[in-house]
Amino acid sequence: MTDPASSGGGPYRVGLLGHGTVGAAFATLLAERAGAVEAATGRRPELAGVLTRTRGDFEDILERSDLIVELIGGVEPAREYLLRAMRAGRDVVSANKALLSRHGEELYAAAREGGAQLRFEAAVGGVVPVIRVIHETLAAAHIEKVHGIVNGTTNYILTEMARTGASFEEALADAQRLGYAEADPTDDVSGADAAAKMAIIARLAFGAHVGVDEVPREGIDTITPADIAYARELGLALKLVGSAERVNGGVAVRVFPTFLYAEHPLASVGGAFNAVTIESPAITEITLSGPGAGGSQTASAVLGDLVSAMIPPPTLPAPAVEAPLVLDVESAFYLHLEVADRPGVLAQVAEILGLQGVSVKSVVQSGLGEDARLVMVVHPVLESKFLAAVELIGRLDFLRSTPRLIRVIEELF
Amino acid sequence: MTDPASSGGGPYRVGLLGHGTVGAAFATLLAERAGAVEAATGRRPELAGVLTRTRGDFEDILERSDLIVELIGGVEPAREYLLRAMRAGRDVVSANKALLSRHGEELYAAAREGGAQLRFEAAVGGVVPVIRVIHETLAAAHIEKVHGIVNGTTNYILTEMARTGASFEEALADAQRLGYAEADPTDDVSGADAAAKMAIIARLAFGAHVGVDEVPREGIDTITPADIAYARELGLALKLVGSAERVNGGVAVRVFPTFLYAEHPLASVGGAFNAVTIESPAITEITLSGPGAGGSQTASAVLGDLVSAMIPPPTLPAPAVEAPLVLDVESAFYLHLEVADRPGVLAQVAEILGLQGVSVKSVVQSGLGEDARLVMVVHPVLESKFLAAVELIGRLDFLRSTPRLIRVIEELF
Repeated sequence: MTDPASSGGGPYRVGLLGHGTVGAAFATLLAERAGAVEAATGRRPELAGVLTRTRGDFEDILERSDLIVELIGGVEPAREYLLRAMRAGRDVVSANKALLSRHGEELYAAAREGGAQLRFEAAVGGVVPVIRVIHETLAAAHIEKVHGIVNGTTNYILTEMARTGASFEEALADAQRLGYAEADPTDDVSGADAAAKMAIIARLAFGAHVGVDEVPREGIDTITPADIAYARELGLALKLVGSAERVNGGVAVRVFPTFLYAEHPLASVGGAFNAVTIESPAITEITLSGPGAGGSQTASAVLGDLVSAMIPPPTLPAPAVEAPLVLDVESAFYLHLEVADRPGVLAQVAEILGLQGVSVKSVVQSGLGEDARLVMVVHPVLESKFLAAVELIGRLDFLRSTPRLIRVIEELF
Repeated sequence: MTDPASSGGGPYRVGLLGHGTVGAAFATLLAERAGAVEAATGRRPELAGVLTRTRGDFEDILERSDLIVELIGGVEPAREYLLRAMRAGRDVVSANKALLSRHGEELYAAAREGGAQLRFEAAVGGVVPVIRVIHETLAAAHIEKVHGIVNGTTNYILTEMARTGASFEEALADAQRLGYAEADPTDDVSGADAAAKMAIIARLAFGAHVGVDEVPREGIDTITPADIAYARELGLALKLVGSAERVNGGVAVRVFPTFLYAEHPLASVGGAFNAVTIESPAITEITLSGPGAGGSQTASAVLGDLVSAMIPPPTLPAPAVEAPLVLDVESAFYLHLEVADRPGVLAQVAEILGLQGVSVKSVVQSGLGEDARLVMVVHPVLESKFLAAVELIGRLDFLRSTPRLIRVIEELF
């Protein structure tokens, strides 16, 4: 057996198990970001081998790798490969929530025995770094409760039902058409996927082993549009919520369709997003949110784990690079004008904006006579151009005070 | 000079510089959570010494410490102490945003030379783990843009102005009365505090040094209630937003009062909360939110850094503890009843709920005759009690279908 390269410099060799959607995305991302990984860690990563159903030999790849990335999914042979890798002292990164939730104790024990790292941020929460925050930021905190929207498919379906009044069946068909739901959606809509993720979270947050089959759960397939519509009158939004909490010296872990008041941080999490709220007395709460798992999102979480496995503890910024500070950038703007209410006011303002290449997104006009106001939002434009337009507008004789402007951030999606 | 204890087992000795609000909260939290830190790291932390303006000797504390926690604030003497500690090979944790934003390069260089860790999660974002997520989870990601609400005082003031229609001056006075703003609020309301934090974030996200005094900024003292009211008609919420983004090979870092569309993840961040949205092509975006810095929140962030500094890279869950799985827990519920519209329906339902100790929070009645509905939300109650009440309600002769129930999560605050 060759010596793992972890003993010295040279490239850092990554053995990749699985080359489906996520595996292929990871291979691409690793090549794209190899320079950034080298800048962060001092070593350039490279693929030492790829194992698929039809090509590659596990033992051979293991011998040639410093670290194994497992993206096969399912229990076997992923379990056997990870155990053998860690017993051979190799660090491993996995996105396998089925494996972690069913065989976590065996894997954790193998990692301890082999002195290996086992990282699995990508198994829970899409791009949301819930594993790292619970396990590192809050390592010594007393976590009381975790609430999570940890299944993007069901959140997409519930969001569509709320938005359009569609039935569960209609919203599911829509989700399947758009690729947010599988042809057989049972694992998602029954809450089974969320239950597995909450069992992993509970193990990390409370140190308690929770059997995934013991987690009480209910899916979203019985939810009606009437439930959602009535509850909205009460100020409530419906989500499939996984909860893990300490109760009387024990631990309760459950997955149920649940209403949230609009003020709760999870209430506004829409579409195929995931989000987790972690409550602890000293911190009150932290909420993390982001897109649920897609191929490139999961690959990105795996890459973050890979880099952490490569870095010895002193993580420091690399020496600063030279980068010019840019002052004139594109922004959307809100523009508030107090004007005399005369014909042609809007036309003149719009003409000046148009000449500077400023495009109006929405307008509100209000008031009459001497107290009229013209309030608008414009699409992103180079600030210098917008400011030039406002300078010209400020000279118009119907202006009653200095124009007021405030920057606007557009919706993310 | 004694050998630092990092060379062996025994207690892990922490030298604490500063014993104000945060310093005192940290000393208390460290004592409370010493057992949890030992469980996570294998070593029990203890205070090796405390330096205040009137007691303690820095050299003496440094000699007796494995790690220095700096909670003095301001530039000097904090800078001098941290440089000396790191040059002596001691790891350091600091919450000092003024120091990091003005002398970051010097401190990073000293850490590299001394082989020491320099951690400063508590300097930016309150309990929000923005430093860890940018610097570890996204170490090899290409970050395009960071938007942040990084000053809790101004977010509290803007939230109050929006909620009550108060002027800036009124909302500021209110914030001062409640302890959310200092007697001299200049540093917060001018955007200077947010600019320092965004300079630190830009350094980590883009590797670029940004001089804090070069950051263009505008405060919130010129915002009027009319701006907020008009913009709400356009679907916009006003926040003091710090932004750091890559632009044409350079970096733009700015702090401005900015409107956000309701769909943006920062738009719903209210009160004295902080939140940060990080955008990167592979992940789309991650949003992190939580309370801005108070004494116990900052102390908790410092403790998380301390634990990370103590742990060698293989961070694994400790062996599982035994904890009973609790199945009967307290929940709030939504209850949806289809009823015949007769006198006494609500009274009978309410009586059954009352007998089981279930208390009603809000009710909506709708419809007439045979299509009436009674929809309500009840306060948290042991599920077995609520289910027993629903079982009894299900037998009432005016019920037209099986009662429907869905769990409700209450507002966090």
